[in-house]
Amino acid sequence: MVQVVQPSGIVTLLTDFGLEDVYVGVMKGVMLNINPRMTLVDLTHQIPSQNVELGAFQLQNAYPHFPVGTVHLAVVDPGVGSARRAIAIATPSGFFVGPDNGIFSPVLEGEGWIQASALDNPQYWYSPTPSATFHGRDIFSAAAAHLASGVPFKALGTALAAGQLTVLPKLPCTASAIGLQGVIRALDRFGNGISNIPAMAVQGREWAVTVEKRLFPHHATYSEVEMGHPVSLVGSHGWVELAVRGGSAQKDYGLALGDRVELTWV
Amino acid sequence: MVQVVQPSGIVTLLTDFGLEDVYVGVMKGVMLNINPRMTLVDLTHQIPSQNVELGAFQLQNAYPHFPVGTVHLAVVDPGVGSARRAIAIATPSGFFVGPDNGIFSPVLEGEGWIQASALDNPQYWYSPTPSATFHGRDIFSAAAAHLASGVPFKALGTALAAGQLTVLPKLPCTASAIGLQGVIRALDRFGNGISNIPAMAVQGREWAVTVEKRLFPHHATYSEVEMGHPVSLVGSHGWVELAVRGGSAQKDYGLALGDRVELTWV
Amino acid sequence: MVQVVQPSGIVTLLTDFGLEDVYVGVMKGVMLNINPRMTLVDLTHQIPSQNVELGAFQLQNAYPHFPVGTVHLAVVDPGVGSARRAIAIATPSGFFVGPDNGIFSPVLEGEGWIQASALDNPQYWYSPTPSATFHGRDIFSAAAAHLASGVPFKALGTALAAGQLTVLPKLPCTASAIGLQGVIRALDRFGNGISNIPAMAVQGREWAVTVEKRLFPHHATYSEVEMGHPVSLVGSHGWVELAVRGGSAQKDYGLALGDRVELTWV
Repeated sequence: MVQVVQPSGIVTLLTDFGLEDVYVGVMKGVMLNINPRMTLVDLTHQIPSQNVELGAFQLQNAYPHFPVGTVHLAVVDPGVGSARRAIAIATPSGFFVGPDNGIFSPVLEGEGWIQASALDNPQYWYSPTPSATFHGRDIFSAAAAHLASGVPFKALGTALAAGQLTVLPKLPCTASAIGLQGVIRALDRFGNGISNIPAMAVQGREWAVTVEKRLFPHHATYSEVEMGHPVSLVGSHGWVELAVRGGSAQKDYGLALGDRVELTWV
Repeated sequence: MVQVVQPSGIVTLLTDFGLEDVYVGVMKGVMLNINPRMTLVDLTHQIPSQNVELGAFQLQNAYPHFPVGTVHLAVVDPGVGSARRAIAIATPSGFFVGPDNGIFSPVLEGEGWIQASALDNPQYWYSPTPSATFHGRDIFSAAAAHLASGVPFKALGTALAAGQLTVLPKLPCTASAIGLQGVIRALDRFGNGISNIPAMAVQGREWAVTVEKRLFPHHATYSEVEMGHPVSLVGSHGWVELAVRGGSAQKDYGLALGDRVELTWV
Repeated sequence: MVQVVQPSGIVTLLTDFGLEDVYVGVMKGVMLNINPRMTLVDLTHQIPSQNVELGAFQLQNAYPHFPVGTVHLAVVDPGVGSARRAIAIATPSGFFVGPDNGIFSPVLEGEGWIQASALDNPQYWYSPTPSATFHGRDIFSAAAAHLASGVPFKALGTALAAGQLTVLPKLPCTASAIGLQGVIRALDRFGNGISNIPAMAVQGREWAVTVEKRLFPHHATYSEVEMGHPVSLVGSHGWVELAVRGGSAQKDYGLALGDRVELTWV
């Protein structure tokens, strides 16, 4: 039996297109042509250029907070114009549309069931002859708008098994007798470093974090430490985060993407 | 008698979260979960990190242009996780939701009557156990969406007197025999310096401005001076502004936040 | 006979106001005051300050993808406060509102028929006494919202002939026996250089491009060249583009706005 949720009429957009150009606006125009009543919500368009891993991470943090049946359009697409597949995925949370390059890895891991389709039915493309450089406009936006408007999921193209979809290698997060070892997976605007160590792994325990010989003691909130002092805590997205109160762990302590995070039980 | 206006169904968002991360998108997801029919409008998400004073200034410039009954959600929140209160305010203009840290100071000064509530009724939170770091998601967005959807203002929590709310100290703007003395309160994208001297204080008079020994003669519009020349005028938000035509007062003349502004009657 | 299309209820916004300030939010407030049911879509607000030519280019790339009857509000307005006219244009595609400074040049060239009006009827302004610095708020937003809400085009003000409107000089694009000569007209976020040589001029032929002695061989897609190698192709907006696969033609090869583009037939 094919399980698919009802569309909410909402489409979210996550890309690496930036806001200087009109790429995002053009995608919205394509969608409003198909259905002028849709609600469009930007997640971010400032994923670092072609960084699929960070796109996957940001999408993972955002999509669970949207109504069931929302369509999540994610276009970080270094392989545009190559043979990489264009796909849509249906899950208990909603729909996901974008390139098959691993950007939906956390969705594939986290969701209860998965339906997948290749977007190979040209009837639901924006252009019968898609460009080689902008599938965000020519294929993905149109598929997202059709899904949000009630077009049956199966109509979009050939069914795929979940096992046929691309999954990114997991960033290493390992446990030892003395603690956990992970990496800095993202840096936010405040210069906070977000690791790949999940909240669940540290729940109810006391710990401290060391990155490049810098100590970040654990506290429940920023406000428990003095201004300018380092702190590690469970951040709002559910990961161990490293911060400097009233400062920037990135600027003040040189924290960088990929830095090794040593968490030690206290 | 409790006075409260009817909601317009519109929520504006002003934060220091930036657009690189999905914090803002997550807040919108929370609101659309409560009411998928709301209209969401970004004021800005690029308030300098944790700068409550600039957040208050930008909110003050924007909110009067929205329909009566609009909910204004403002989250610049260095005290998140501490004991600072989460509040909502009702005025003749509409509703204001955010931390009680002074970001609503101009609202408290400028509006005819004020109703205020602490957001301490967990029934209207997004999460029964709010995180220590993201009340924008866990408390404020939910309150804003409920207000925009018709939940009675009094239901959100304990009533507060206006006098219990935090107000920022006013930036100094003084008058002397020869003129007015203020400060640069904001710099915009064009490098214009916006002072805290209100239009009303200079109406119908002739004046010139000096900042750090640089003279900015008064003209009615940019186009009355030569390209590359300095000018002071009443800006669009209703404050005395300093500009360089076709240039940037910030870059060309070194104008900075907090610079002393000497306005002399001519 | 006056031809005018039906409004779609959608307004797009393109400005050089940036996203740090609340200028764009204020324009949206003005429009939602006139009609709270409108759909507002940002094209971009990061046109380089006062660069009318780039504003015209970005608008040209975006507007054809929106539903017929959409209102396109474009405010890049170095002459605000001077005698330059405020105008609206009606075409088979929809409506265009902004300053008469050439920002609509590609619209005037590309559309089948043109109706134009000066926005001189104060009944459709936001303020009876517009400021000298922010016509985006005081005149243009209000006109756009009224058009999107069904106010007759002719009501906005005095009819103008198409020949009375300002047109920008065309960037030089010439043909010789050995090929075509154009310029770099825009650089996008990926560091791709977009020329003013249209797809139509190179259709079905083989060519290579040289900029400042750097060779960009022609391929159909980015993925046909090795990582880090230069390529020229027909980009998604329909112009000859120069790129570096997985890199930035701007950063890696010093490509700049206005650089001469030499396209040679192979």
